[in-house]
Amino acid sequence: MYELGVVYRNIQRADAALANGLARLGSATVHEAMGRVGLLKPYMRPIYAGAQVAGSAITVLLHPGDNWMMHVAAEQIRPGDIVVAAITAECTDGYFGDLLATSFMARGARALVIDAGVRDVKILTEMGFPVWSKAISAKGTIKATLGSVNIPVVCAGALVTPGDVIVADDDGVVCVPAAMAAQTLQAAVAREALEGEKRARLASGVLGLDMYQMREPLAKAGLKYLD
Amino acid sequence: MYELGVVYRNIQRADAALANGLARLGSATVHEAMGRVGLLKPYMRPIYAGAQVAGSAITVLLHPGDNWMMHVAAEQIRPGDIVVAAITAECTDGYFGDLLATSFMARGARALVIDAGVRDVKILTEMGFPVWSKAISAKGTIKATLGSVNIPVVCAGALVTPGDVIVADDDGVVCVPAAMAAQTLQAAVAREALEGEKRARLASGVLGLDMYQMREPLAKAGLKYLD
Amino acid sequence: MYELGVVYRNIQRADAALANGLARLGSATVHEAMGRVGLLKPYMRPIYAGAQVAGSAITVLLHPGDNWMMHVAAEQIRPGDIVVAAITAECTDGYFGDLLATSFMARGARALVIDAGVRDVKILTEMGFPVWSKAISAKGTIKATLGSVNIPVVCAGALVTPGDVIVADDDGVVCVPAAMAAQTLQAAVAREALEGEKRARLASGVLGLDMYQMREPLAKAGLKYLD
Amino acid sequence: MYELGVVYRNIQRADAALANGLARLGSATVHEAMGRVGLLKPYMRPIYAGAQVAGSAITVLLHPGDNWMMHVAAEQIRPGDIVVAAITAECTDGYFGDLLATSFMARGARALVIDAGVRDVKILTEMGFPVWSKAISAKGTIKATLGSVNIPVVCAGALVTPGDVIVADDDGVVCVPAAMAAQTLQAAVAREALEGEKRARLASGVLGLDMYQMREPLAKAGLKYLD
Amino acid sequence: MYELGVVYRNIQRADAALANGLARLGSATVHEAMGRVGLLKPYMRPIYAGAQVAGSAITVLLHPGDNWMMHVAAEQIRPGDIVVAAITAECTDGYFGDLLATSFMARGARALVIDAGVRDVKILTEMGFPVWSKAISAKGTIKATLGSVNIPVVCAGALVTPGDVIVADDDGVVCVPAAMAAQTLQAAVAREALEGEKRARLASGVLGLDMYQMREPLAKAGLKYLD
Amino acid sequence: MYELGVVYRNIQRADAALANGLARLGSATVHEAMGRVGLLKPYMRPIYAGAQVAGSAITVLLHPGDNWMMHVAAEQIRPGDIVVAAITAECTDGYFGDLLATSFMARGARALVIDAGVRDVKILTEMGFPVWSKAISAKGTIKATLGSVNIPVVCAGALVTPGDVIVADDDGVVCVPAAMAAQTLQAAVAREALEGEKRARLASGVLGLDMYQMREPLAKAGLKYLD
Repeated sequence: MYELGVVYRNIQRADAALANGLARLGSATVHEAMGRVGLLKPYMRPIYAGAQVAGSAITVLLHPGDNWMMHVAAEQIRPGDIVVAAITAECTDGYFGDLLATSFMARGARALVIDAGVRDVKILTEMGFPVWSKAISAKGTIKATLGSVNIPVVCAGALVTPGDVIVADDDGVVCVPAAMAAQTLQAAVAREALEGEKRARLASGVLGLDMYQMREPLAKAGLKYLD
Repeated sequence: MYELGVVYRNIQRADAALANGLARLGSATVHEAMGRVGLLKPYMRPIYAGAQVAGSAITVLLHPGDNWMMHVAAEQIRPGDIVVAAITAECTDGYFGDLLATSFMARGARALVIDAGVRDVKILTEMGFPVWSKAISAKGTIKATLGSVNIPVVCAGALVTPGDVIVADDDGVVCVPAAMAAQTLQAAVAREALEGEKRARLASGVLGLDMYQMREPLAKAGLKYLD
Repeated sequence: MYELGVVYRNIQRADAALANGLARLGSATVHEAMGRVGLLKPYMRPIYAGAQVAGSAITVLLHPGDNWMMHVAAEQIRPGDIVVAAITAECTDGYFGDLLATSFMARGARALVIDAGVRDVKILTEMGFPVWSKAISAKGTIKATLGSVNIPVVCAGALVTPGDVIVADDDGVVCVPAAMAAQTLQAAVAREALEGEKRARLASGVLGLDMYQMREPLAKAGLKYLD
Repeated sequence: MYELGVVYRNIQRADAALANGLARLGSATVHEAMGRVGLLKPYMRPIYAGAQVAGSAITVLLHPGDNWMMHVAAEQIRPGDIVVAAITAECTDGYFGDLLATSFMARGARALVIDAGVRDVKILTEMGFPVWSKAISAKGTIKATLGSVNIPVVCAGALVTPGDVIVADDDGVVCVPAAMAAQTLQAAVAREALEGEKRARLASGVLGLDMYQMREPLAKAGLKYLD
Repeated sequence: MYELGVVYRNIQRADAALANGLARLGSATVHEAMGRVGLLKPYMRPIYAGAQVAGSAITVLLHPGDNWMMHVAAEQIRPGDIVVAAITAECTDGYFGDLLATSFMARGARALVIDAGVRDVKILTEMGFPVWSKAISAKGTIKATLGSVNIPVVCAGALVTPGDVIVADDDGVVCVPAAMAAQTLQAAVAREALEGEKRARLASGVLGLDMYQMREPLAKAGLKYLD
Repeated sequence: MYELGVVYRNIQRADAALANGLARLGSATVHEAMGRVGLLKPYMRPIYAGAQVAGSAITVLLHPGDNWMMHVAAEQIRPGDIVVAAITAECTDGYFGDLLATSFMARGARALVIDAGVRDVKILTEMGFPVWSKAISAKGTIKATLGSVNIPVVCAGALVTPGDVIVADDDGVVCVPAAMAAQTLQAAVAREALEGEKRARLASGVLGLDMYQMREPLAKAGLKYLD
């Protein structure tokens, strides 16, 4: 299903302001605002806690144990991009380490999302280059087989098209299709606007049961209180 | 990334002769002929051994624990189709049993491929309706939430577009994009044509080392024989 | 949470007619009739296809790698019982083989359900003694530590109390609390009575969409058909 | 096996002093003192390191992808309680985030233990509200189906009855039945009292072989030293 | 830890009579006779039920996704051998299909044990060539990288040295070091000799409790019977 | 395959300078220098981030749920050693806590690598005693069965012989056979020497494509750039 051996150079990137807005809101709020689709599988974890980023997806398709195309992808990175790496089969090898991170940072990449392993995580943490991955592994890779750059890929169960907005933080990674980014941001902002007041009321001891007016629907559904 | 609440009625089905040709060759040969892409993850297993089928994909996107859209999908089935069911999150529930299978068979479906669970497997086996699934589970589902029918879906890690040819047998499930079906069949047939002679030579005791002329490249790569 | 070192001899068994009735209906129908609770996790698989049984639970709590209490449990078996074995920690060892099966059969046991491994599966298959287990393993166990017999246990995620009815077939294993067995059988029979007619209608080409009158609720939920 | 649609309001809570005593000792010591039962499966991990708590269990039974009952549970919380959430099937969705945590904290809850996913983990960490969970996931849940509050539940393989004492720290989560809390504390304190002296002796270079007088039983068991 | 790029031609094979004797006894009895070591992890499953074999191990070390060395291994096979294939990293690819099986059979191999995937399982079943593997996958492999033949390898968690006796059946795969084969056979035969009588007694209703004289040690350990 | 009930007292330790040199280079660089073999499976994770050590392996073979031999191993530790613990079957129990760590530190051990669980991780972190393990679990173990000390073991899929150099850090654990330690250090140092300059060039914006002269081989392999 994948076109192999090609690099698409001209992709339509998402608007930087949109990406920055989505980054601030975080993956959970954005995922809700999308109607609960677009989440990469929750086995994707950050190598360190606290990073919260968004950017336009540069995609790269790799073969198991082979990171050759990572270097091809590096050239396509523009400031604000997030590289999304998919593999043609299950693999936990460490495709990415401090040298590639140095190159990616020099090109302006904000993060890497990879459905495989990563290494040099101590140095990556010191460099402040966030990675979301399936595994951490010291095992390196070879450079022998062509994959592709900037084709649509399936990464951790989600379809990612180049130029989609990737939102990643401690809760996981969400892919927002470019065409939905503006409306998602709007919905997410609206959603968040309500949260401050809700939080204050809950903190004061008001129950969600009352604030969300759940008592009646719960009774209607048949909930019984027993002593 | 998914469009929810829609049913596309007019999809471009694959040519029946192509599907039948690919079915005869089997998933392993077809996967090779595609350049080793398009395989669903190997956790997808048949509920009984021996079935070998191919057909045009009807896709359905379902929510965890909810099989409402299966009934919507049933109406879109035409003879020769294979239903490919994706779920918006990990789930092992039994979405499909003997009643739905009766309906699917009445519509002419050849098989179901589902990235979740199935039940009534004993009856399905007796009926001869093959299913490839991630799990077998007695747990039923509700009918409450809209998904979609005939949109591109990610099923067991592979992107499946309606009308793609699905090839499934004891070795697994392969998705052949409609546009590649003809050339894949041709390549697979060519590949298979060579296998009969190879098999005969290997059976007579000729080694692959000699038949494929591997001794020189192995020596060049540095292989050493020790006593 | 477990009482160790005790054997309860007098347990209240389920009515044999109830168990036999539930066996005939199978795990999927029974699970539906219970309101979709009581299923053991779907990793519990039969060692051979086709067995379909039900019986009163005799429970046994074992330690990892130790099957001593299996012999204690054997003495408590009466005709029609199913032994349900839980382990105090994850283990895949083969706790049960042809000798214990011979003893269990001599006592009248109908099956074993074990959240661990089993061995001698070829002979067990020939003997026709069905086992649902998490694993198959040649690894034997020692006889050194006390567990308990006929205390409530958690087996594959489900609470099983001695005397509950266990229903097991190719779709999995369901535990029906003794107090719910009669009403569950009634509900399951009623459920099944409707299936024959439904099956005939679906086989004749009637769609579930029409038979279950789903078109209106689907439209109301916003489903859109596109060409 | 579960009673659905009920909320038990009057549960017998554990004595606060007992809970506080058990918290100080930690899950490993408490688990030993219980005779090595009661541990939730080790896939239950804290969202941040360092929290060490104990409290009376409030239980809640949820359906996959549905956190409606969390709001019902919130009302039953009293200061010092720990909410224990079980799901009727495997699920990794993020059932709990910063809003619910605000409400739980306002009610006096000390922690959440959930056999599913959690989100907003960065904020929860900042708030200092500890959660032990199976997963972290940005995926939210709906509010549609009744479960129950304060019935016995199976959470991560362990039976938890309302009012049991939950002890949780970096090593995992242990459930101490209310009736065993006092004797467990006593045994755990006795156990710990011996550890200080042992630690000092081991730190000074004394071997466990000598301190525990293991040399003779090891020799008796047949241990051989070879050069 | 592995020597790469070498083929050892002269290995010391196990005595054929020993292997045949061990095959007849099966993996469970042999594993017991070895003192419960030497079992490959229980995820190793046969592609079809009923095969029961033993033979001298020919080992082959492969790289992920690369089966080049399988052809090198084929030349080293002598009648009665079992090929044991280890991979340098986790992989589920289908390294072996009907062509290689034809070659292996022509050389006299009895089986393949591989810590990865296999394909063409329907044809292999028809050919009667048994394989124990971690996975079944249509995904083929390339021929590009040197591994080794007849070096000690770790396969599914067990160390296998060329010439060890491999015993495999429906219960799993056991590796018997060459030096232990004779004594293991003797112990296994002795063990089995006792089983016939035991089976007869158990079948007649004698309990293991009495036959193994367990009542006293159980009472001593503190077992209590309650009514 | 394992010799049980033995302790080898005289093992050949690696040169301390070699171990220290390898520690400084880290597991990823060392693994590359070894030709990409010797890595323990990537499920082995450190209990806290930042530790980076190397030392001579003391091996210990344990049975599931039994840590008796840990005390026997403690006596064999000399300053600079790393204890490598293998289990005869899958187990996640907490074999090791703060008391054993106190003893190991008093003997001069640098770390523990264990293919099972560990507990008291908060105290171990405060003590600064690093552990790489498969799990964290409060569940303790008994002291009842003989294993062995200083025999070759398979730990997390890798063969470890006493005296091999273990290199462990945030990227994982590598085993360097004693005989390869010197040449591996040399190769690793050479490898690292080149990295500083490479890093500087990549940081300045030079692409790996140019620095490694990949453009020509990529074109030769057929890579196509599209706009």
